[in-house]
Amino acid sequence: MAKDKPYPPQYYNDYLNLKKILDSQHLKSDEFGTRAHDEMLFIIIHQVYELWFKQILFELDDLLTIFGEKEINESHIGTAVSRLDRIIEIQKILIDQVRVLETMTPMDFLDFRDFLIPASGFQSAQFRLIENKLGLQPEKRFSYGGAHYRSYLKSSDDKEVKGSEANPSLFELLEKWLERTPFLSWGKTSFWNEYEAAVKTMLASDRHLIESNENLSDEEKQKHLNEYGKTELSFGLVLDQSQHDAVVSKGEWRLSHKATQAALLILLYREQPILHNPYQLLTKLADVDELFTTWRYRHALMVSRMIGKKIGTGGSTGSTYLNQTAEKHRIFSDISALTTFLIPRSSLPELPSEVKDDLGFYFHVKGGE
Amino acid sequence: MAKDKPYPPQYYNDYLNLKKILDSQHLKSDEFGTRAHDEMLFIIIHQVYELWFKQILFELDDLLTIFGEKEINESHIGTAVSRLDRIIEIQKILIDQVRVLETMTPMDFLDFRDFLIPASGFQSAQFRLIENKLGLQPEKRFSYGGAHYRSYLKSSDDKEVKGSEANPSLFELLEKWLERTPFLSWGKTSFWNEYEAAVKTMLASDRHLIESNENLSDEEKQKHLNEYGKTELSFGLVLDQSQHDAVVSKGEWRLSHKATQAALLILLYREQPILHNPYQLLTKLADVDELFTTWRYRHALMVSRMIGKKIGTGGSTGSTYLNQTAEKHRIFSDISALTTFLIPRSSLPELPSEVKDDLGFYFHVKGGE
Amino acid sequence: MAKDKPYPPQYYNDYLNLKKILDSQHLKSDEFGTRAHDEMLFIIIHQVYELWFKQILFELDDLLTIFGEKEINESHIGTAVSRLDRIIEIQKILIDQVRVLETMTPMDFLDFRDFLIPASGFQSAQFRLIENKLGLQPEKRFSYGGAHYRSYLKSSDDKEVKGSEANPSLFELLEKWLERTPFLSWGKTSFWNEYEAAVKTMLASDRHLIESNENLSDEEKQKHLNEYGKTELSFGLVLDQSQHDAVVSKGEWRLSHKATQAALLILLYREQPILHNPYQLLTKLADVDELFTTWRYRHALMVSRMIGKKIGTGGSTGSTYLNQTAEKHRIFSDISALTTFLIPRSSLPELPSEVKDDLGFYFHVKGGE
Amino acid sequence: MAKDKPYPPQYYNDYLNLKKILDSQHLKSDEFGTRAHDEMLFIIIHQVYELWFKQILFELDDLLTIFGEKEINESHIGTAVSRLDRIIEIQKILIDQVRVLETMTPMDFLDFRDFLIPASGFQSAQFRLIENKLGLQPEKRFSYGGAHYRSYLKSSDDKEVKGSEANPSLFELLEKWLERTPFLSWGKTSFWNEYEAAVKTMLASDRHLIESNENLSDEEKQKHLNEYGKTELSFGLVLDQSQHDAVVSKGEWRLSHKATQAALLILLYREQPILHNPYQLLTKLADVDELFTTWRYRHALMVSRMIGKKIGTGGSTGSTYLNQTAEKHRIFSDISALTTFLIPRSSLPELPSEVKDDLGFYFHVKGGE
Repeated sequence: MAKDKPYPPQYYNDYLNLKKILDSQHLKSDEFGTRAHDEMLFIIIHQVYELWFKQILFELDDLLTIFGEKEINESHIGTAVSRLDRIIEIQKILIDQVRVLETMTPMDFLDFRDFLIPASGFQSAQFRLIENKLGLQPEKRFSYGGAHYRSYLKSSDDKEVKGSEANPSLFELLEKWLERTPFLSWGKTSFWNEYEAAVKTMLASDRHLIESNENLSDEEKQKHLNEYGKTELSFGLVLDQSQHDAVVSKGEWRLSHKATQAALLILLYREQPILHNPYQLLTKLADVDELFTTWRYRHALMVSRMIGKKIGTGGSTGSTYLNQTAEKHRIFSDISALTTFLIPRSSLPELPSEVKDDLGFYFHVKGGE
Repeated sequence: MAKDKPYPPQYYNDYLNLKKILDSQHLKSDEFGTRAHDEMLFIIIHQVYELWFKQILFELDDLLTIFGEKEINESHIGTAVSRLDRIIEIQKILIDQVRVLETMTPMDFLDFRDFLIPASGFQSAQFRLIENKLGLQPEKRFSYGGAHYRSYLKSSDDKEVKGSEANPSLFELLEKWLERTPFLSWGKTSFWNEYEAAVKTMLASDRHLIESNENLSDEEKQKHLNEYGKTELSFGLVLDQSQHDAVVSKGEWRLSHKATQAALLILLYREQPILHNPYQLLTKLADVDELFTTWRYRHALMVSRMIGKKIGTGGSTGSTYLNQTAEKHRIFSDISALTTFLIPRSSLPELPSEVKDDLGFYFHVKGGE
Repeated sequence: MAKDKPYPPQYYNDYLNLKKILDSQHLKSDEFGTRAHDEMLFIIIHQVYELWFKQILFELDDLLTIFGEKEINESHIGTAVSRLDRIIEIQKILIDQVRVLETMTPMDFLDFRDFLIPASGFQSAQFRLIENKLGLQPEKRFSYGGAHYRSYLKSSDDKEVKGSEANPSLFELLEKWLERTPFLSWGKTSFWNEYEAAVKTMLASDRHLIESNENLSDEEKQKHLNEYGKTELSFGLVLDQSQHDAVVSKGEWRLSHKATQAALLILLYREQPILHNPYQLLTKLADVDELFTTWRYRHALMVSRMIGKKIGTGGSTGSTYLNQTAEKHRIFSDISALTTFLIPRSSLPELPSEVKDDLGFYFHVKGGE
Repeated sequence: MAKDKPYPPQYYNDYLNLKKILDSQHLKSDEFGTRAHDEMLFIIIHQVYELWFKQILFELDDLLTIFGEKEINESHIGTAVSRLDRIIEIQKILIDQVRVLETMTPMDFLDFRDFLIPASGFQSAQFRLIENKLGLQPEKRFSYGGAHYRSYLKSSDDKEVKGSEANPSLFELLEKWLERTPFLSWGKTSFWNEYEAAVKTMLASDRHLIESNENLSDEEKQKHLNEYGKTELSFGLVLDQSQHDAVVSKGEWRLSHKATQAALLILLYREQPILHNPYQLLTKLADVDELFTTWRYRHALMVSRMIGKKIGTGGSTGSTYLNQTAEKHRIFSDISALTTFLIPRSSLPELPSEVKDDLGFYFHVKGGE
């Protein structure tokens, strides 16, 4: 902020464009019938939602820029974490302010609902941009009312939303960044060899403890062994590349095997100072994902209370749609699911000192400053 | 919503005026220097605040209409309570979303702060309207920087804000409504006589219990009697009209003696079904008052963290101002303070049955339907 | 609180039994291995949950007493509403404090998790009591791990929990109270007749508007008529007793037809002062239901993040169970679903004046005072 | 968690000591009069508070251990940050759950309040321990009712609380840690010299901009120069050791000059990866401080609403006390106030590369690993 001359004075109203912002509420009930007092709230809260969506997109675009760079150093990761932190705080507000809308009762909504047809949240281009930029895959979208999601958009919005499908998403850029991490090779061995050995030792010890436990009846023993079997099976999914590829092709897992390895290393060795920010990054991405899930779910509860099983404005059976998409539209659920493959600190292979140096090198130096 | 012909179709973007709303963010750091990433948040969160202020004013105006009517029946009180409920939920969001702004660090703020001088929240006309319509008295305003609060406003806003000083405020209308309640006269006696007698009996019994308590040393007895004396004194403030008038003229109490009596009756007999809504009304007004206090206080904490003791944008030592006004700008604090004068249910004079009928008559019938 | 002699002095520590409360945290990691710092939090947060469960049960028992009485007047309903309000505030804390537990990372949990087997939240007798007293039907319970839910309880707890299955639940008592309301009969006609007529008029007008709309193509017209057909169908479910009984026998609806009518009347005429508290009652019951749903859901998110897809302590695949029960274990979902059957105020049949009097009589007088 | 034999099975009820926990609620209104329904909530919420206080103390003790060590490396700082994160989440719950207590009305409280005399929150030993361990100075304590704060405690608690006054507090240990940081010396120059030069350049430029601004009238110019003068003055407080010592001796500042320098360096260069955790540490300490302030304040609002200006249980005019201590009992307010002395990134002296290495050395290597 080089300051060689005084800047022109700014005033609050102009700086915030309040004239435009505060003159953008026109009640359809005023236009077509009798004023429905609650329509004002309905307009204003949706405008507030869209303003927050704009802010989320602004942060998201910056994240795409950061991870689209060839060289990413630790201070960039720190910036990325703070962008995610902001998105998270906004998401909490998106969820909490549903309570404001709930001060409108279903009877009050009936007073102006018919005037709005077919306006609907399905027509929000910004929300679709957020989904696409995060990495929601078009083929994973829950089809709604038989129509393509973009068919609900204004044609002037369609181009940008379509474009966002084609451009690299945050998921894809993150995956590539993870795959590029050099710390999976540990000299003569590799993180994956050592991890696999540790898992096998741990599982064998667990099995031994069950089989040798004299306090258990045969029936109880069998029950514990069944549970043990499930644990063994689930570790197989990550240890064996072919099993991993199989669940990927079935759509049950998305992150590539190499990126999965890198993410798991970050989770397991997160106490290494140099992995602090990468660990925060993975954690915050899972937070963002969960908070959108919670928002859809919370939103569905409210809609179901507001309109029952009746047809939503815009012809949507809104609450069902929102509930179905809540789980299905998760993007970073692989990261949360990685917890399945953690092992206790006591079983954790020690990080070779040259790898520690590598970590430092990768994050601090190679990435430039 | 008589429906004899189909309404024209509405679309989300147009209905919400998104073109205007989402095109109202212009970063001064883009204009005068290097983009400061966090300026976007600074703009958007303040626009969100102003949208919520508009909604609060919309509810407040409806409250002024309700209490400005000659006849107010119970269902109007019910509507008033639901308006206050909405204001309360909005206030909670105003407070919680300070956390979003706190994701901007003081160093990030420094990147664009100088561009904004002298813009400042002091220039928000809507917030001044809220204060005036609730009933903040001009002479109670904390003077800031030696200048009159309206001198910070745009001249185009000044007229409306000045007008709101002159019009009856919610405080004044509420006071008049309370004074008009007919239920203070109880046939041959009055609520006030009965209440006074009950208080005196209660105080005499308390004094007797202290004086006759053999477990207390003389010193302890004296300590308890001192405390007792303070209680007696504070009841005097409400029982004795001349004492009441004295504290009013000193500015320590605002509600007239008659309105104070009516409010106290509502608090004491709130379990009467017919007093349910009036009791809710008083409670919610105290809530609104406390939440604005909390908001100022929470805001002050944030500002103090953001700018330290430096001079705020607009030349305000913002955090000090906000902290000082937090308590001083309370409007309905008399209602909270009434708690001081509650007496236990066991000491409460019974409500004569004709008064119960009167209550029903006053709220249900006389007010029309 | 008759006060003829001084009460013995009380002290904070003794009154709250702090000696016992604060000496009830014994870390298994201290006993069997190395102290796992986070185990203290794990113990304390679960103790806090159980204390809140105790408080919820205390309020719930009072609700069962209120609705178990033969005569229920409006002030009882007011008390019931305030009991529900307290439960709601507690539920919000139960949900929010999941965040405290989330400051424990999955790796930290692994440090002491194996010491606790097979302890699990499934062994909480208080939570089962809450479910049963609210009205969860044993046959609706999601079977977990093939075992009956009571098989997880201590035998000393089993008796009370089993008893709570047999006693009338809040759902059942509420249903009976609704069925007893006398205001469904409207002299020569009935609420139900009038409501049915109003619905039919409204639907016919909707159909006409679609068919006569010249702006719609044939294809669009058909689409709108399809949607219209669904609306007509869903009203059939409530209007026609035999259809209603069919959905009840399929387990898709639970409230009897008569109770459904009464609840719908309360929702439609909630602006009648005398229906204010009954309306609040229905609303708060739906709130309690939704908040338990949200709590299970939020809890599931946390568990899934903490233990991934691994087997939970106590052998539970906790997160899946919680997610599956979130919707299935709802008890008052019929009340939220009633929104489906609301009609606009403009179509609402006017309440006959003798019914208004009846309402007053039923709630105020007949219920004693 | 070496695992050579199976651990004994654990059950939920026993593990959590539920028998003791859930049998610790004895209503005085049951004992001395008629059951006051709301006394159960009063007991349980205070027990919940004390459980959370125990957890806060547990985290605080760990923090004292960490900062009491001779060698502190970055991963210790990371642990310290996560301890503070947990305290913060607990504090938010402490604040939010005041809402649960507010479901008790003042009239309900009157039903059992006299039974509890003189029990009071002033008798909570755990809260005093928290204050002392954080670093509240005995001489800074707001005297309450003329008596020493420890005179309210049980004699069995007095010893531990007194001891906590004598032991090094978190404030003191933090100050020593800051003073020990080696990075203030920058080869031939020092951070302080460079910072002072940068401040002076910045101030001179600010003054020049005002004086040369042709858009300002003489009066406006003078006003701006007055504000400028205040800024210059406030920088003097930190730049000049003797001025600093003067404000310390007046009790307006507490952190030593050297520790203040180190804290300021951490704030200014927080984007250096190695300063990430130290920066988080300072930020979280300010958070903890503010949240206790908010808690006292929120608590005061509630008490004032509950008991008015009457004498509190235990003879306390609780709300006044809490309000007065809210600001006065702050411990880490110097950290928030440091914001005053930040300068824009563009004016920031560049960190010499050998200092960057020093930072790495200090945090990573010297601290062991």
